[in-house]
Amino acid sequence: MDKLLVVKIGGNIIDDAEKLASFLHEFALLPYRKILVHGGGKLATDLAQKTGIPQQMVEGRRITDAETLKVVTMVYAGAINKNIVAQLQSKGVGALGLTGADGNAVRAHKRINANLDYGFVGDVDDVNTSLFKVLLQNNLTPVVAPITHDGLGQLLNTNADTVAQEIAKALSAHFLVSLVYSFEKEGVMLDVNDAGSVISSLNADYYDTLKENGSIFAGMIPKLDNAFAAVSSGVDKVIIGNAMHLSSLIEGTKGTTISHARQQL
Amino acid sequence: MDKLLVVKIGGNIIDDAEKLASFLHEFALLPYRKILVHGGGKLATDLAQKTGIPQQMVEGRRITDAETLKVVTMVYAGAINKNIVAQLQSKGVGALGLTGADGNAVRAHKRINANLDYGFVGDVDDVNTSLFKVLLQNNLTPVVAPITHDGLGQLLNTNADTVAQEIAKALSAHFLVSLVYSFEKEGVMLDVNDAGSVISSLNADYYDTLKENGSIFAGMIPKLDNAFAAVSSGVDKVIIGNAMHLSSLIEGTKGTTISHARQQL
Repeated sequence: MDKLLVVKIGGNIIDDAEKLASFLHEFALLPYRKILVHGGGKLATDLAQKTGIPQQMVEGRRITDAETLKVVTMVYAGAINKNIVAQLQSKGVGALGLTGADGNAVRAHKRINANLDYGFVGDVDDVNTSLFKVLLQNNLTPVVAPITHDGLGQLLNTNADTVAQEIAKALSAHFLVSLVYSFEKEGVMLDVNDAGSVISSLNADYYDTLKENGSIFAGMIPKLDNAFAAVSSGVDKVIIGNAMHLSSLIEGTKGTTISHARQQL
Repeated sequence: MDKLLVVKIGGNIIDDAEKLASFLHEFALLPYRKILVHGGGKLATDLAQKTGIPQQMVEGRRITDAETLKVVTMVYAGAINKNIVAQLQSKGVGALGLTGADGNAVRAHKRINANLDYGFVGDVDDVNTSLFKVLLQNNLTPVVAPITHDGLGQLLNTNADTVAQEIAKALSAHFLVSLVYSFEKEGVMLDVNDAGSVISSLNADYYDTLKENGSIFAGMIPKLDNAFAAVSSGVDKVIIGNAMHLSSLIEGTKGTTISHARQQL
């Protein structure tokens, strides 16, 4: 099977024009078929504030009401997505921006929760692998914004990590997929204050041990649970690390690589 | 050659949710390969006002400074494009949204004018016919926002009528193209106050006569000049008329049809 990279780039990098340009430069040079999934960053919050849309937070989570959905659609699918696409095009990459609605790329349903209405938030049901295959086979590089749709005309705000994971899982039937979560941290660290404590490879047994003895930063656990779910569902490996060292992450010389097969301890 | 429709939908329809839904319903039913190009509407002006971006008008034309470009990118490529795509998907159309940057669909250069700096406004250089062919052959329906790029990382604001015309002209080498300018008027009228005075078909000779005797509403002239330029460049016909009667326009029972071949007078 051909190798495919699914790279998620985090919001903190997107907010920094220089870091983003540097990341896109490295991304452009990667000699593989690839898909980029981007998060949101601060721009959406800024625009909501400027236009006087109150941000509802319930139990620490943002509620996506109709006005907020409009703002995130404009910022994610408009400003951020098209800026990234134009930059990648200038670097010779056949970038093509997508939301989940475009070509029915990622279909979702509005989250159902008995205790809390999250508003227009989508949980992914289906990834259109035929669409991604056609684009990749024609040397196009999908750049995916974290907006999905329900197939009934409704756009939905969806977590970018989840979008990347679902695309990676679905395409594992057709490609040897590496899923890269790239952000401002070096990887999974034994000591959150020591960049030298990065765990270079992690399997499920070792992860369980680290969780039990409290060695893993709590904020990392949802990301890692997602990573292990991905490798259990056919993704070849998941790599977590600093977006400023993208090629080293893929070579395995930096960051944390999570795989099903590799043994540790 | 296969028939292809390139349909431009005007801003006044986009501003009216009910009219837009009705238009998209008819568009979805058209049994041809098709491309939709949409304009902007009032949303961009509204967002610029809300966020305190002054709109510079020089000699009656809007100047696209960097902040205004960001606004139109968010509104055209984000809010409007994704709303249309999601609605078409719900009607069974394989809609896929594009700006000119996506897949290098429409490349342009920043307008050069010795007397006036229009800002980030693009004049079209090239349409990527290979991209449109791949999408159309895979039953995808491109939905194009009037934003282009220069291939060097810069997005550019571009007139939607021009984008539609350039796409129609370029694809005439591969398809039998009808270019439809659909908006809130009935077509080219001899008397602007009489909807019954629509000219059903117009050729270059008749157009010259009407211009000479002042029978054509001045605001229509740039659109018609564009239309005749398109039929001179290989477009089979250009149809101008009311977006609420799309199928009748295409059947030729409503609106004005402009063709190279047809004789009149």
